[in-house]
Amino acid sequence: MGERVTVTEVGPRDGLQMAKSIMPTDAKVAWIKALVAAGIHEIEVGSFVPPKLIPQMADTGDVVRAGLEIPGLRIVALVPNLKGAQRAYEAGAHVVTVPVSVSEGHSRANTNKGSLDQVAEVRAIREWLDAQERKVKLDAGCVTAFGCSIEGNVPESRVVMIAAALADAGVDGILLADTVGYGNPAQIRSVVRAVQREVGEKLERLHLHDTMGLGIANALAGLDEGIRCFDSALAGLGGCPFAPGASGNIVTEDLVFMLESMGFDTGIDLDRLIAAREALHRGLPDAELLGNVVKAGIPRTYRRAA
Amino acid sequence: MGERVTVTEVGPRDGLQMAKSIMPTDAKVAWIKALVAAGIHEIEVGSFVPPKLIPQMADTGDVVRAGLEIPGLRIVALVPNLKGAQRAYEAGAHVVTVPVSVSEGHSRANTNKGSLDQVAEVRAIREWLDAQERKVKLDAGCVTAFGCSIEGNVPESRVVMIAAALADAGVDGILLADTVGYGNPAQIRSVVRAVQREVGEKLERLHLHDTMGLGIANALAGLDEGIRCFDSALAGLGGCPFAPGASGNIVTEDLVFMLESMGFDTGIDLDRLIAAREALHRGLPDAELLGNVVKAGIPRTYRRAA
Repeated sequence: MGERVTVTEVGPRDGLQMAKSIMPTDAKVAWIKALVAAGIHEIEVGSFVPPKLIPQMADTGDVVRAGLEIPGLRIVALVPNLKGAQRAYEAGAHVVTVPVSVSEGHSRANTNKGSLDQVAEVRAIREWLDAQERKVKLDAGCVTAFGCSIEGNVPESRVVMIAAALADAGVDGILLADTVGYGNPAQIRSVVRAVQREVGEKLERLHLHDTMGLGIANALAGLDEGIRCFDSALAGLGGCPFAPGASGNIVTEDLVFMLESMGFDTGIDLDRLIAAREALHRGLPDAELLGNVVKAGIPRTYRRAA
Repeated sequence: MGERVTVTEVGPRDGLQMAKSIMPTDAKVAWIKALVAAGIHEIEVGSFVPPKLIPQMADTGDVVRAGLEIPGLRIVALVPNLKGAQRAYEAGAHVVTVPVSVSEGHSRANTNKGSLDQVAEVRAIREWLDAQERKVKLDAGCVTAFGCSIEGNVPESRVVMIAAALADAGVDGILLADTVGYGNPAQIRSVVRAVQREVGEKLERLHLHDTMGLGIANALAGLDEGIRCFDSALAGLGGCPFAPGASGNIVTEDLVFMLESMGFDTGIDLDRLIAAREALHRGLPDAELLGNVVKAGIPRTYRRAA
């Protein structure tokens, strides 16, 4: 039996938030069902943000409620603030993920708040969640941890500082996000190690984009450092706001192919995963669906780890 | 100063041999000149194979002779047999690379000879080259070292056996080729280590394809094991004969971006490298030019290692 690696599908959130058209709720749910049927059991189904800002996410509450009917699904929702966390809790999400920009410039541009003010928001969410009846996992994401389109280089010491502040605020898990895809494997290793030294196993997850073609190599670098949870999007949905035409999230199909080929057990069936692209395509017919394994076909040498 | 890594451009050989149209000799030379101007100093400019089999390579002698006029260029030519090696020598190539299929089925399908018969051909080339006045480097490639579209899995022990036989035949350098792109990083590491144990530093080079999207991650795996020479093709030219639509060689631009970002010194200027795509496009207007860095644009955080 291979060692377990968790692949969290973020397509319904990160993949859709910049899409030109809006995927209908039914289509989102059908897509999520197809993903679960393929063996993906953790899905970021949407975000609780103001519908005026991201209309693609206006129905996240409905998607979460529909997701609760799907056996075996752990529902992750992105929330930018306490109000979003409250909405996510009320809808029934199992995990809320709060983004905190490590880059001060990115933080101000996106949330009108500095990085440490956003950490304070995370602390408020922690306190509010602790006062509720139902237990919800609280994750925080160090966003722009490997570079920023506004500030350029992001110092490793600042990633460590924000991660430490998040651990101190009581989050359950921390993820590092290469939001714009500037990261390289040496940097991933170095930053992951530095953050692990500070917060230990609270560093759980990497969120990588394939903007420069290094996404899968960056995942490998994280894997080498002991990371066992990765975000990815079916068909590499997502794009990059600063680079039109650039690739989006790392491709779930290619990531699963690599992990299983290397002997890691993802619990995911690659054929069924590829079949789930059809549900995505039906819901978002104009989106370009990326993926090398799909283009080439699963090779005859492929064997699942489990 | 970063550690040196050599990127050998194989586009003019591996990228063109399956192209639908034939690139004119002048266009090949203009492309090669643009690559050299970007800082690439080792280029596989073509192969000496029967023109009836691969008409795209009929002018390789002319290309080699033109290449001799370009200062600082080390000219590599692929040769399948002694006759090809003799033609490469006469044209003036600095390095000849002889492919040897590790997969017996692939070897017979491509050369009508078994793997060890092809090693005997390498030995004959060694003897003939040793008797010539001019010194030419003799490399041999363990082709289908990480999987085969005909035989499927290729045992590691067989890669080691063929590499050992090639070392015994007196080759100067050995390369391992993931010809069909089935390899994964764990396998790359394991096979590279096993071959290194047998032939030491004679294992110089990896030749990787991006068929399944793992090409750059596989390069990282090789890098981790001490490999410092990689084949790649500008714009990922090349494709895969068994998988129409699949990606070809790993993309030189993306590979250089990764290496330089990680602190390795390739000697290559990324802007000029990207500019060389124009010469490729002029010579082969129908070819699809791949590459993530080009699509997204070189990020503001990019700094050359040197």
